[in-house]
Amino acid sequence: MRTYPECVACLVRQAVDLTLNNVPEHEQHAVLKVLVTGIANADFSLPPPMVAMEMYELLRTCTGIEDPYAAAKNASTHKALGYASELSELIARSADPLDTAMRIAVAGNIIDFGINSPDPGRIHETVSKALHASFAIDYSPELKERLALGGNVLYLADNAGEIVFDRLLIQQIGPERVTCAVRDMPVINDATLSDATRSGLSQICRVITSGSRAPGTPRQMWTDEFRQHFQEADVVISKGQGNFETLSHIDRDVFFLFMVKCGVISREVGAPLHSFIALKQPEKQDGAP
Amino acid sequence: MRTYPECVACLVRQAVDLTLNNVPEHEQHAVLKVLVTGIANADFSLPPPMVAMEMYELLRTCTGIEDPYAAAKNASTHKALGYASELSELIARSADPLDTAMRIAVAGNIIDFGINSPDPGRIHETVSKALHASFAIDYSPELKERLALGGNVLYLADNAGEIVFDRLLIQQIGPERVTCAVRDMPVINDATLSDATRSGLSQICRVITSGSRAPGTPRQMWTDEFRQHFQEADVVISKGQGNFETLSHIDRDVFFLFMVKCGVISREVGAPLHSFIALKQPEKQDGAP
Repeated sequence: MRTYPECVACLVRQAVDLTLNNVPEHEQHAVLKVLVTGIANADFSLPPPMVAMEMYELLRTCTGIEDPYAAAKNASTHKALGYASELSELIARSADPLDTAMRIAVAGNIIDFGINSPDPGRIHETVSKALHASFAIDYSPELKERLALGGNVLYLADNAGEIVFDRLLIQQIGPERVTCAVRDMPVINDATLSDATRSGLSQICRVITSGSRAPGTPRQMWTDEFRQHFQEADVVISKGQGNFETLSHIDRDVFFLFMVKCGVISREVGAPLHSFIALKQPEKQDGAP
Repeated sequence: MRTYPECVACLVRQAVDLTLNNVPEHEQHAVLKVLVTGIANADFSLPPPMVAMEMYELLRTCTGIEDPYAAAKNASTHKALGYASELSELIARSADPLDTAMRIAVAGNIIDFGINSPDPGRIHETVSKALHASFAIDYSPELKERLALGGNVLYLADNAGEIVFDRLLIQQIGPERVTCAVRDMPVINDATLSDATRSGLSQICRVITSGSRAPGTPRQMWTDEFRQHFQEADVVISKGQGNFETLSHIDRDVFFLFMVKCGVISREVGAPLHSFIALKQPEKQDGAP
Protein backbone atom coordinates (compact mmCIF):
# COMPACT_ATOMS: atom_id res chain seq x y z
CA MET A 1 0.00 0.00 0.00
CA ARG A 2 1.29 3.46 -0.90
CA THR A 3 1.59 6.52 1.36
CA TYR A 4 -1.51 8.69 0.89
CA PRO A 5 -1.62 12.47 1.51
CA GLU A 6 -3.49 11.84 4.79
CA CYS A 7 -0.62 9.57 5.88
CA VAL A 8 1.78 12.50 5.40
CA ALA A 9 -0.29 14.63 7.81
CA CYS A 10 -0.35 11.73 10.30
CA LEU A 11 3.42 11.20 10.04
CA VAL A 12 4.11 14.91 10.59
CA ARG A 13 1.83 14.84 13.64
CA GLN A 14 3.91 11.91 14.96
CA ALA A 15 7.11 13.86 14.23
CA VAL A 16 5.76 16.84 16.19
CA ASP A 17 4.76 14.65 19.16
CA LEU A 18 8.15 12.91 19.15
CA THR A 19 9.91 16.26 19.06
CA LEU A 20 7.83 17.81 21.84
CA ASN A 21 8.24 14.73 24.05
CA ASN A 22 11.92 13.96 23.50
CA VAL A 23 13.86 17.06 22.44
CA PRO A 24 14.92 20.04 24.63
CA GLU A 25 12.89 23.12 23.74
CA HIS A 26 15.78 25.09 22.24
CA GLU A 27 16.50 22.25 19.78
CA GLN A 28 12.90 21.43 18.84
CA HIS A 29 12.66 23.65 15.77
CA ALA A 30 15.91 22.36 14.27
CA VAL A 31 15.00 18.70 14.86
CA LEU A 32 11.46 19.18 13.58
CA LYS A 33 12.78 20.76 10.37
CA VAL A 34 14.96 17.70 9.76
CA LEU A 35 12.07 15.28 10.42
CA VAL A 36 9.52 17.16 8.28
CA THR A 37 12.03 17.61 5.45
CA GLY A 38 12.71 13.86 5.65
CA ILE A 39 9.00 13.08 5.34
CA ALA A 40 8.63 15.51 2.41
CA ASN A 41 11.57 13.88 0.62
CA ALA A 42 10.39 10.30 1.18
CA ASP A 43 9.15 8.06 -1.62
CA PHE A 44 5.36 8.14 -1.26
CA SER A 45 4.99 5.10 -3.49
CA LEU A 46 6.31 3.11 -0.50
CA PRO A 47 4.00 2.05 2.37
CA PRO A 48 3.62 4.52 5.28
CA PRO A 49 5.70 2.36 7.69
CA MET A 50 8.74 2.83 5.42
CA VAL A 51 8.34 6.61 5.61
CA ALA A 52 7.81 6.33 9.38
CA MET A 53 11.02 4.30 9.64
CA GLU A 54 13.00 6.99 7.83
CA MET A 55 11.56 9.61 10.17
CA TYR A 56 12.50 7.57 13.27
CA GLU A 57 16.01 7.02 11.91
CA LEU A 58 16.39 10.77 11.41
CA LEU A 59 15.28 11.31 15.02
CA ARG A 60 17.88 8.75 16.12
CA THR A 61 20.61 10.46 14.09
CA CYS A 62 19.67 13.96 15.28
CA THR A 63 19.19 13.23 18.95
CA GLY A 64 20.85 9.90 19.74
CA ILE A 65 17.54 8.67 21.19
CA GLU A 66 17.34 4.96 20.38
CA ASP A 67 13.89 4.15 21.72
CA PRO A 68 11.64 7.08 22.66
CA TYR A 69 8.85 4.69 23.61
CA ALA A 70 10.92 2.33 25.81
CA ALA A 71 9.21 3.33 29.07
CA ALA A 72 5.75 3.39 27.49
CA LYS A 73 6.28 -0.07 26.00
CA ASN A 74 7.39 -1.54 29.31
CA ALA A 75 4.38 -0.01 31.07
CA SER A 76 2.15 -1.38 28.33
CA THR A 77 3.57 -4.90 28.70
CA HIS A 78 3.24 -4.69 32.47
CA LYS A 79 -0.42 -3.67 32.25
CA ALA A 80 -1.28 -6.29 29.65
CA LEU A 81 0.36 -8.99 31.80
CA GLY A 82 -1.94 -7.92 34.62
CA TYR A 83 -4.93 -8.99 32.52
CA ALA A 84 -3.41 -12.19 31.11
CA SER A 85 -4.65 -14.76 33.62
CA GLU A 86 -8.18 -13.30 33.69
CA LEU A 87 -8.37 -13.41 29.87
CA SER A 88 -6.79 -16.85 29.80
CA GLU A 89 -9.58 -18.18 32.04
CA LEU A 90 -12.19 -16.45 29.88
CA ILE A 91 -10.77 -18.28 26.85
CA ALA A 92 -10.62 -21.65 28.65
CA ARG A 93 -14.25 -21.33 29.79
CA SER A 94 -15.59 -20.31 26.37
CA ALA A 95 -17.44 -22.62 23.95
CA ASP A 96 -14.88 -22.00 21.19
CA PRO A 97 -11.53 -21.15 22.82
CA LEU A 98 -9.72 -20.56 19.50
CA ASP A 99 -12.39 -18.11 18.35
CA THR A 100 -12.39 -16.30 21.69
CA ALA A 101 -8.58 -16.10 21.74
CA MET A 102 -8.59 -14.70 18.20
CA ARG A 103 -11.08 -12.00 19.16
CA ILE A 104 -9.05 -11.06 22.23
CA ALA A 105 -5.93 -10.81 20.07
CA VAL A 106 -7.74 -8.40 17.71
CA ALA A 107 -8.97 -6.39 20.72
CA GLY A 108 -5.32 -6.21 21.84
CA ASN A 109 -4.53 -4.46 18.57
CA ILE A 110 -6.32 -1.29 19.62
CA ILE A 111 -5.41 -1.13 23.25
CA ASP A 112 -2.07 0.59 22.72
CA PHE A 113 -1.65 0.99 26.48
CA GLY A 114 1.46 3.06 26.49
CA ILE A 115 0.70 5.44 23.69
CA ASN A 116 -2.53 7.11 24.68
CA SER A 117 -3.60 7.69 28.24
CA PRO A 118 -4.44 4.20 29.44
CA ASP A 119 -7.97 3.77 30.68
CA PRO A 120 -8.29 0.74 32.99
CA GLY A 121 -11.97 0.33 32.03
CA ARG A 122 -11.15 0.26 28.35
CA ILE A 123 -9.64 -3.21 28.22
CA HIS A 124 -12.85 -4.82 29.51
CA GLU A 125 -14.98 -2.72 27.18
CA THR A 126 -12.81 -3.55 24.17
CA VAL A 127 -12.62 -7.26 24.97
CA SER A 128 -16.36 -7.36 25.50
CA LYS A 129 -16.89 -5.64 22.15
CA ALA A 130 -14.48 -8.06 20.47
CA LEU A 131 -16.28 -11.09 21.90
CA HIS A 132 -19.62 -10.02 20.48
CA ALA A 133 -18.76 -7.92 17.41
CA SER A 134 -19.21 -9.18 13.89
CA PHE A 135 -16.04 -8.90 11.87
CA ALA A 136 -16.61 -6.36 9.06
CA ILE A 137 -14.50 -8.63 6.84
CA ASP A 138 -14.50 -12.18 8.16
CA TYR A 139 -12.18 -14.88 6.90
CA SER A 140 -11.87 -16.24 10.44
CA PRO A 141 -13.82 -19.46 9.63
CA GLU A 142 -11.34 -20.22 6.85
CA LEU A 143 -8.41 -19.32 9.11
CA LYS A 144 -9.71 -21.73 11.76
CA GLU A 145 -10.12 -24.49 9.15
CA ARG A 146 -6.59 -23.93 7.90
CA LEU A 147 -5.20 -24.00 11.44
CA ALA A 148 -7.10 -27.26 12.10
CA LEU A 149 -5.19 -28.92 9.24
CA GLY A 150 -1.98 -28.70 11.29
CA GLY A 151 1.39 -27.57 9.93
CA ASN A 152 3.61 -24.60 10.72
CA VAL A 153 2.28 -21.14 11.52
CA LEU A 154 4.14 -17.87 11.08
CA TYR A 155 2.67 -15.15 13.31
CA LEU A 156 3.65 -11.52 12.61
CA ALA A 157 3.38 -9.50 15.80
CA ASP A 158 2.61 -5.80 15.99
CA ASN A 159 2.89 -3.83 19.24
CA ALA A 160 4.41 -4.37 22.68
CA GLY A 161 1.64 -5.03 25.21
CA GLU A 162 -0.54 -6.41 22.41
CA ILE A 163 1.78 -9.44 22.16
CA VAL A 164 0.60 -10.56 25.62
CA PHE A 165 -2.80 -11.08 23.95
CA ASP A 166 -1.16 -12.68 20.91
CA ARG A 167 0.45 -15.13 23.34
CA LEU A 168 -3.02 -16.27 24.44
CA LEU A 169 -4.00 -16.95 20.82
CA ILE A 170 -0.71 -18.75 20.13
CA GLN A 171 -1.41 -20.94 23.18
CA GLN A 172 -4.65 -22.03 21.47
CA ILE A 173 -3.02 -22.57 18.07
CA GLY A 174 -0.31 -24.72 19.64
CA PRO A 175 2.89 -22.86 20.48
CA GLU A 176 5.17 -25.74 19.39
CA ARG A 177 4.24 -25.14 15.75
CA VAL A 178 4.26 -21.33 15.82
CA THR A 179 7.11 -18.99 14.94
CA CYS A 180 6.46 -15.38 15.91
CA ALA A 181 8.22 -12.53 14.11
CA VAL A 182 8.91 -9.15 15.71
CA ARG A 183 10.72 -5.96 14.61
CA ASP A 184 14.49 -5.90 14.42
CA MET A 185 14.84 -2.53 16.18
CA PRO A 186 12.59 -0.28 18.31
CA VAL A 187 10.21 1.83 16.21
CA ILE A 188 7.15 3.52 17.79
CA ASN A 189 5.62 1.01 20.21
CA ASP A 190 6.23 -2.02 18.01
CA ALA A 191 7.35 -5.24 19.67
CA THR A 192 11.02 -6.28 19.49
CA LEU A 193 12.82 -9.38 20.81
CA SER A 194 13.17 -7.85 24.27
CA ASP A 195 9.44 -7.04 24.39
CA ALA A 196 8.76 -10.65 23.40
CA THR A 197 10.87 -11.85 26.33
CA ARG A 198 9.19 -9.41 28.73
CA SER A 199 5.71 -10.48 27.64
CA GLY A 200 6.41 -14.19 28.11
CA LEU A 201 6.05 -14.89 24.39
CA SER A 202 9.64 -16.13 23.93
CA GLN A 203 9.05 -18.64 26.72
CA ILE A 204 6.26 -20.44 24.85
CA CYS A 205 7.22 -20.30 21.15
CA ARG A 206 10.06 -19.52 18.85
CA VAL A 207 10.49 -15.77 18.29
CA ILE A 208 12.56 -14.38 15.42
CA THR A 209 13.13 -10.92 14.02
CA SER A 210 11.67 -10.20 10.60
CA GLY A 211 14.59 -7.89 9.92
CA SER A 212 12.29 -4.88 9.88
CA ARG A 213 13.23 -1.57 11.43
CA ALA A 214 9.91 -0.16 10.16
CA PRO A 215 6.54 -0.37 11.95
CA GLY A 216 5.53 -3.13 9.53
CA THR A 217 7.22 -5.99 7.70
CA PRO A 218 8.45 -4.61 4.34
CA ARG A 219 9.89 -7.21 2.00
CA GLN A 220 13.01 -5.10 1.40
CA MET A 221 14.15 -5.74 4.97
CA TRP A 222 13.40 -9.42 5.49
CA THR A 223 16.19 -11.64 6.86
CA ASP A 224 16.87 -14.90 5.00
CA GLU A 225 15.50 -16.78 8.02
CA PHE A 226 12.26 -14.79 7.96
CA ARG A 227 11.92 -15.19 4.18
CA GLN A 228 12.19 -18.94 4.52
CA HIS A 229 9.53 -19.03 7.26
CA PHE A 230 7.28 -16.75 5.21
CA GLN A 231 7.57 -18.93 2.12
CA GLU A 232 7.26 -22.28 3.87
CA ALA A 233 4.72 -21.71 6.65
CA ASP A 234 1.38 -23.45 6.15
CA VAL A 235 -0.46 -20.46 7.59
CA VAL A 236 0.68 -16.84 7.95
CA ILE A 237 -1.18 -14.64 10.45
CA SER A 238 -0.40 -10.91 10.35
CA LYS A 239 -1.48 -8.63 13.20
CA GLY A 240 -2.03 -4.88 12.95
CA GLN A 241 -2.27 -2.11 10.37
CA GLY A 242 1.49 -1.69 9.84
CA ASN A 243 1.90 -5.29 8.75
CA PHE A 244 -1.14 -4.94 6.47
CA GLU A 245 0.21 -1.72 4.94
CA THR A 246 3.49 -3.41 4.04
CA LEU A 247 2.15 -6.84 2.98
CA SER A 248 -1.26 -6.19 1.42
CA HIS A 249 0.04 -6.91 -2.10
CA ILE A 250 2.39 -9.78 -1.30
CA ASP A 251 2.34 -12.89 -3.52
CA ARG A 252 1.18 -15.45 -0.98
CA ASP A 253 -1.96 -15.85 1.09
CA VAL A 254 -1.85 -14.07 4.46
CA PHE A 255 -4.57 -13.73 7.10
CA PHE A 256 -4.61 -10.15 8.38
CA LEU A 257 -6.13 -9.57 11.82
CA PHE A 258 -6.52 -5.95 12.90
CA MET A 259 -8.81 -3.17 13.90
CA VAL A 260 -9.34 -0.27 11.46
CA LYS A 261 -7.65 2.70 13.14
CA CYS A 262 -7.74 5.43 10.46
CA GLY A 263 -9.69 6.70 7.48
CA VAL A 264 -7.06 5.66 4.95
CA ILE A 265 -7.20 1.99 5.99
CA SER A 266 -11.00 2.17 6.22
CA ARG A 267 -11.06 3.26 2.56
CA GLU A 268 -8.37 0.76 1.56
CA VAL A 269 -10.24 -2.29 2.91
CA GLY A 270 -13.75 -0.89 2.47
CA ALA A 271 -14.78 -1.28 6.11
CA PRO A 272 -15.83 1.24 8.78
CA LEU A 273 -13.45 2.95 11.18
CA HIS A 274 -12.97 0.91 14.39
CA SER A 275 -14.32 -2.27 12.80
CA PHE A 276 -12.68 -5.65 13.35
CA ILE A 277 -11.04 -7.22 10.33
CA ALA A 278 -10.05 -10.83 9.60
CA LEU A 279 -9.02 -10.43 5.96
CA LYS A 280 -7.35 -12.94 3.66
CA GLN A 281 -5.20 -11.50 0.87
CA PRO A 282 -4.92 -12.17 -1.97
CA GLU A 283 -8.46 -13.50 -2.02
CA LYS A 284 -8.08 -15.40 -5.32
CA GLN A 285 -5.31 -17.68 -4.01
CA ASP A 286 -7.72 -19.69 -1.94
CA GLY A 287 -6.31 -23.16 -1.26
CA ALA A 288 -9.81 -24.66 -1.00
CA PRO A 289 -10.64 -27.17 -3.74
CA MET B 1 4.09 35.07 18.19
CA ARG B 2 6.37 32.38 16.81
CA THR B 3 5.41 29.17 14.98
CA TYR B 4 5.28 26.31 17.50
CA PRO B 5 5.81 22.62 16.63
CA GLU B 6 2.04 22.05 16.94
CA CYS B 7 1.50 24.83 14.34
CA VAL B 8 3.71 22.87 11.90
CA ALA B 9 1.44 19.81 12.26
CA CYS B 10 -1.62 22.05 11.74
CA LEU B 11 -0.11 23.70 8.65
CA VAL B 12 0.76 20.32 7.11
CA ARG B 13 -2.81 19.14 7.76
CA GLN B 14 -4.03 22.26 5.89
CA ALA B 15 -1.59 21.50 3.06
CA VAL B 16 -2.96 17.95 2.82
CA ASP B 17 -6.58 19.16 2.81
CA LEU B 18 -5.79 21.79 0.16
CA THR B 19 -4.06 19.19 -1.99
CA LEU B 20 -6.84 16.61 -1.68
CA ASN B 21 -9.52 19.20 -2.44
CA ASN B 22 -7.84 21.10 -5.29
CA VAL B 23 -5.28 18.96 -7.10
CA PRO B 24 -5.94 16.07 -9.55
CA GLU B 25 -5.02 12.75 -7.93
CA HIS B 26 -2.01 12.03 -10.16
CA GLU B 27 -0.41 15.36 -9.18
CA GLN B 28 -1.20 15.26 -5.46
CA HIS B 29 2.03 13.68 -4.31
CA ALA B 30 4.22 16.11 -6.24
CA VAL B 31 2.28 19.17 -5.03
CA LEU B 32 2.21 17.92 -1.44
CA LYS B 33 5.97 17.42 -1.48
CA VAL B 34 6.44 21.04 -2.54
CA LEU B 35 4.07 22.34 0.15
CA VAL B 36 5.51 20.23 2.99
CA THR B 37 9.08 21.07 1.95
CA GLY B 38 8.06 24.74 1.96
CA ILE B 39 6.68 24.44 5.50
CA ALA B 40 9.83 22.59 6.68
CA ASN B 41 12.05 25.33 5.19
CA ALA B 42 10.04 28.23 6.63
CA ASP B 43 11.38 30.50 9.38
CA PHE B 44 9.63 29.24 12.53
CA SER B 45 10.55 32.40 14.41
CA LEU B 46 7.86 34.10 12.30
CA PRO B 47 4.15 33.90 13.24
CA PRO B 48 2.17 30.91 11.83
CA PRO B 49 0.23 33.11 9.35
CA MET B 50 3.52 33.97 7.60
CA VAL B 51 4.31 30.28 7.16
CA ALA B 52 0.72 29.66 6.01
CA MET B 53 1.11 32.46 3.45
CA GLU B 54 4.24 30.86 2.01
CA MET B 55 2.41 27.53 1.75
CA TYR B 56 -0.55 29.15 -0.06
CA GLU B 57 1.83 30.95 -2.43
CA LEU B 58 3.50 27.64 -3.24
CA LEU B 59 0.08 26.15 -3.97
CA ARG B 60 -0.65 29.10 -6.25
CA THR B 61 2.68 28.69 -8.07
CA CYS B 62 2.30 24.90 -8.42
CA THR B 63 -1.32 24.78 -9.49
CA GLY B 64 -2.36 28.24 -10.66
CA ILE B 65 -5.24 28.13 -8.17
CA GLU B 66 -5.70 31.70 -6.96
CA ASP B 67 -8.42 31.20 -4.39
CA PRO B 68 -9.26 27.62 -3.37
CA TYR B 69 -11.86 28.88 -0.89
CA ALA B 70 -13.68 31.29 -3.24
CA ALA B 71 -16.89 29.26 -3.38
CA ALA B 72 -16.83 28.48 0.35
CA LYS B 73 -16.32 32.16 1.17
CA ASN B 74 -19.22 33.25 -0.99
CA ALA B 75 -21.46 30.62 0.58
CA SER B 76 -20.32 31.76 4.01
CA THR B 77 -21.12 35.41 3.24
CA HIS B 78 -24.49 34.42 1.81
CA LYS B 79 -25.40 32.45 4.94
CA ALA B 80 -24.22 35.14 7.32
CA LEU B 81 -26.26 37.75 5.42
CA GLY B 82 -29.31 35.56 5.99
CA TYR B 83 -28.93 36.08 9.75
CA ALA B 84 -28.05 39.79 9.63
CA SER B 85 -31.47 41.37 10.09
CA GLU B 86 -32.45 38.98 12.88
CA LEU B 87 -29.21 39.72 14.76
CA SER B 88 -29.54 43.42 14.05
CA GLU B 89 -32.95 43.43 15.73
CA LEU B 90 -31.55 41.45 18.67
CA ILE B 91 -28.89 44.14 19.10
CA ALA B 92 -31.40 47.00 18.80
CA ARG B 93 -33.68 45.47 21.44
CA SER B 94 -30.91 44.73 23.93
CA ALA B 95 -30.15 46.81 27.04
CA ASP B 96 -26.58 47.47 25.91
CA PRO B 97 -26.48 47.35 22.09
CA LEU B 98 -22.71 47.94 21.87
CA ASP B 99 -22.01 45.09 24.28
CA THR B 100 -24.41 42.76 22.45
CA ALA B 101 -22.94 43.67 19.05
CA MET B 102 -19.42 43.01 20.37
CA ARG B 103 -20.44 39.57 21.63
CA ILE B 104 -22.09 38.72 18.31
CA ALA B 105 -18.94 39.80 16.48
CA VAL B 106 -16.85 37.45 18.67
CA ALA B 107 -19.37 34.65 18.04
CA GLY B 108 -18.90 35.32 14.32
CA ASN B 109 -15.22 34.52 14.74
CA ILE B 110 -15.91 30.85 15.28
CA ILE B 111 -18.69 30.26 12.83
CA ASP B 112 -16.39 29.73 9.85
CA PHE B 113 -19.38 28.76 7.71
CA GLY B 114 -17.53 27.72 4.64
CA ILE B 115 -14.71 25.78 6.17
CA ASN B 116 -16.40 23.14 8.27
CA SER B 117 -19.74 21.64 7.44
CA PRO B 118 -22.15 24.43 8.24
CA ASP B 119 -24.76 23.57 10.83
CA PRO B 120 -27.77 25.90 10.64
CA GLY B 121 -28.47 25.37 14.36
CA ARG B 122 -24.96 26.36 15.34
CA ILE B 123 -25.27 30.07 14.69
CA HIS B 124 -28.09 30.42 17.23
CA GLU B 125 -26.26 28.26 19.75
CA THR B 126 -23.03 30.23 19.36
CA VAL B 127 -24.75 33.61 19.50
CA SER B 128 -26.67 32.49 22.59
CA LYS B 129 -23.44 31.37 24.21
CA ALA B 130 -21.75 34.64 23.29
CA LEU B 131 -24.56 36.71 24.79
CA HIS B 132 -24.29 34.99 28.16
CA ALA B 133 -20.68 33.83 28.38
CA SER B 134 -18.11 35.53 30.55
CA PHE B 135 -15.05 36.56 28.61
CA ALA B 136 -12.07 34.53 29.90
CA ILE B 137 -9.98 37.68 29.47
CA ASP B 138 -12.15 40.77 29.52
CA TYR B 139 -10.96 44.21 28.55
CA SER B 140 -14.34 44.94 26.96
CA PRO B 141 -15.32 47.53 29.62
CA GLU B 142 -12.14 49.48 28.82
CA LEU B 143 -12.74 49.08 25.10
CA LYS B 144 -16.26 50.48 25.50
CA GLU B 145 -14.92 53.43 27.54
CA ARG B 146 -12.32 54.15 24.89
CA LEU B 147 -14.92 53.98 22.12
CA ALA B 148 -17.17 56.36 24.09
CA LEU B 149 -14.41 59.01 23.99
CA GLY B 150 -14.91 59.35 20.23
CA GLY B 151 -12.10 59.52 17.67
CA ASN B 152 -11.07 57.24 14.83
CA VAL B 153 -11.29 53.46 14.99
CA LEU B 154 -9.24 50.99 12.96
CA TYR B 155 -10.97 47.61 12.76
CA LEU B 156 -8.93 44.62 11.53
CA ALA B 157 -11.23 42.07 9.96
CA ASP B 158 -10.61 38.33 9.88
CA ASN B 159 -12.80 35.97 7.83
CA ALA B 160 -15.38 36.27 5.07
CA GLY B 161 -18.84 35.62 6.51
CA GLU B 162 -17.63 36.80 9.91
CA ILE B 163 -17.41 40.35 8.54
CA VAL B 164 -21.22 40.44 8.25
CA PHE B 165 -21.21 40.24 12.06
CA ASP B 166 -18.40 42.79 12.27
CA ARG B 167 -20.61 45.11 10.24
CA LEU B 168 -23.24 44.96 13.01
CA LEU B 169 -20.63 45.98 15.60
CA ILE B 170 -19.30 48.75 13.36
CA GLN B 171 -22.89 50.05 13.03
CA GLN B 172 -22.93 50.44 16.82
CA ILE B 173 -19.48 52.04 17.00
CA GLY B 174 -20.44 54.55 14.33
CA PRO B 175 -19.42 53.59 10.79
CA GLU B 176 -18.41 57.14 9.84
CA ARG B 177 -15.41 57.00 12.16
CA VAL B 178 -14.36 53.41 11.39
CA THR B 179 -11.82 52.21 8.85
CA CYS B 180 -11.87 48.46 8.32
CA ALA B 181 -8.78 46.62 7.03
CA VAL B 182 -8.93 43.34 5.09
CA ARG B 183 -6.34 41.09 3.41
CA ASP B 184 -4.72 42.17 0.17
CA MET B 185 -5.17 38.78 -1.53
CA PRO B 186 -7.22 35.62 -0.92
CA VAL B 187 -5.69 33.33 1.71
CA ILE B 188 -7.74 30.56 3.39
CA ASN B 189 -11.17 32.02 4.13
CA ASP B 190 -9.90 35.45 5.12
CA ALA B 191 -11.86 38.50 3.99
CA THR B 192 -10.61 40.57 1.05
CA LEU B 193 -11.97 43.77 -0.55
CA SER B 194 -14.44 41.79 -2.68
CA ASP B 195 -15.72 39.93 0.40
CA ALA B 196 -16.17 43.30 2.10
CA THR B 197 -18.28 44.49 -0.82
CA ARG B 198 -20.31 41.27 -0.87
CA SER B 199 -21.00 41.47 2.86
CA GLY B 200 -22.24 45.08 2.72
CA LEU B 201 -19.30 46.31 4.82
CA SER B 202 -17.90 48.59 2.10
CA GLN B 203 -21.31 50.26 1.85
CA ILE B 204 -21.26 51.49 5.45
CA CYS B 205 -17.61 52.32 6.24
CA ARG B 206 -14.25 52.85 4.63
CA VAL B 207 -12.53 49.56 3.80
CA ILE B 208 -8.82 49.36 3.00
CA THR B 209 -6.36 46.56 2.48
CA SER B 210 -3.71 46.08 5.15
CA GLY B 211 -1.32 44.90 2.45
CA SER B 212 -1.29 41.41 3.94
CA ARG B 213 -1.32 38.28 1.82
CA ALA B 214 -1.08 36.24 5.02
CA PRO B 215 -4.00 35.10 7.23
CA GLY B 216 -3.06 37.83 9.69
CA THR B 217 -1.64 41.38 9.56
CA PRO B 218 2.16 41.05 9.73
CA ARG B 219 4.02 44.34 9.99
CA GLN B 220 6.36 43.39 7.12
CA MET B 221 3.47 43.66 4.65
CA TRP B 222 1.67 46.82 5.74
CA THR B 223 0.90 49.44 3.12
CA ASP B 224 1.83 53.05 3.93
CA GLU B 225 -1.88 53.85 4.13
CA PHE B 226 -2.50 51.05 6.64
CA ARG B 227 0.56 52.03 8.69
CA GLN B 228 -0.73 55.56 9.01
CA HIS B 229 -4.16 54.37 10.14
CA PHE B 230 -2.56 51.95 12.59
CA GLN B 231 -0.37 54.66 14.13
CA GLU B 232 -3.01 57.38 14.22
CA ALA B 233 -6.24 55.58 15.14
CA ASP B 234 -7.60 56.34 18.59
CA VAL B 235 -8.69 52.74 19.03
CA VAL B 236 -7.52 49.61 17.19
CA ILE B 237 -9.78 46.53 17.30
CA SER B 238 -8.32 43.30 15.97
CA LYS B 239 -10.55 40.31 15.22
CA GLY B 240 -9.46 36.67 15.13
CA GLN B 241 -6.46 34.47 15.97
CA GLY B 242 -4.45 35.27 12.85
CA ASN B 243 -4.39 38.98 13.63
CA PHE B 244 -3.45 38.19 17.24
CA GLU B 245 -0.66 35.84 16.13
CA THR B 246 0.89 38.53 13.96
CA LEU B 247 0.30 41.56 16.24
CA SER B 248 0.55 40.25 19.81
CA HIS B 249 3.91 41.95 20.40
CA ILE B 250 3.31 45.18 18.49
CA ASP B 251 4.31 48.50 20.10
CA ARG B 252 0.90 50.11 20.45
CA ASP B 253 -2.23 49.19 22.36
CA VAL B 254 -4.62 46.93 20.44
CA PHE B 255 -7.88 45.33 21.58
CA PHE B 256 -7.98 41.71 20.39
CA LEU B 257 -11.40 40.09 20.09
CA PHE B 258 -11.43 36.39 19.28
CA MET B 259 -12.38 32.91 20.33
CA VAL B 260 -9.60 30.49 21.33
CA LYS B 261 -9.55 27.90 18.56
CA CYS B 262 -6.45 25.80 19.33
CA GLY B 263 -4.22 24.57 22.13
CA VAL B 264 -1.30 26.79 21.13
CA ILE B 265 -3.34 30.00 21.49
CA SER B 266 -4.93 28.67 24.67
CA ARG B 267 -1.43 28.31 26.16
CA GLU B 268 -0.25 31.63 24.69
CA VAL B 269 -3.02 33.70 26.29
CA GLY B 270 -3.60 31.43 29.32
CA ALA B 271 -7.29 30.84 28.67
CA PRO B 272 -9.32 27.67 27.95
CA LEU B 273 -10.01 26.32 24.48
CA HIS B 274 -13.21 27.78 22.99
CA SER B 275 -13.26 30.67 25.47
CA PHE B 276 -14.10 34.21 24.42
CA ILE B 277 -11.28 36.74 24.61
CA ALA B 278 -11.31 40.55 24.75
CA LEU B 279 -7.62 41.15 25.38
CA LYS B 280 -5.71 44.41 25.40
CA GLN B 281 -2.03 44.19 24.48
CA PRO B 282 0.38 45.44 25.62
CA GLU B 283 -1.31 45.69 29.01
CA LYS B 284 1.18 48.18 30.45
CA GLN B 285 0.42 50.89 27.86
CA ASP B 286 -2.91 51.71 29.45
CA GLY B 287 -3.92 55.24 28.60
CA ALA B 288 -5.96 55.56 31.82
CA PRO B 289 -4.65 58.12 34.29
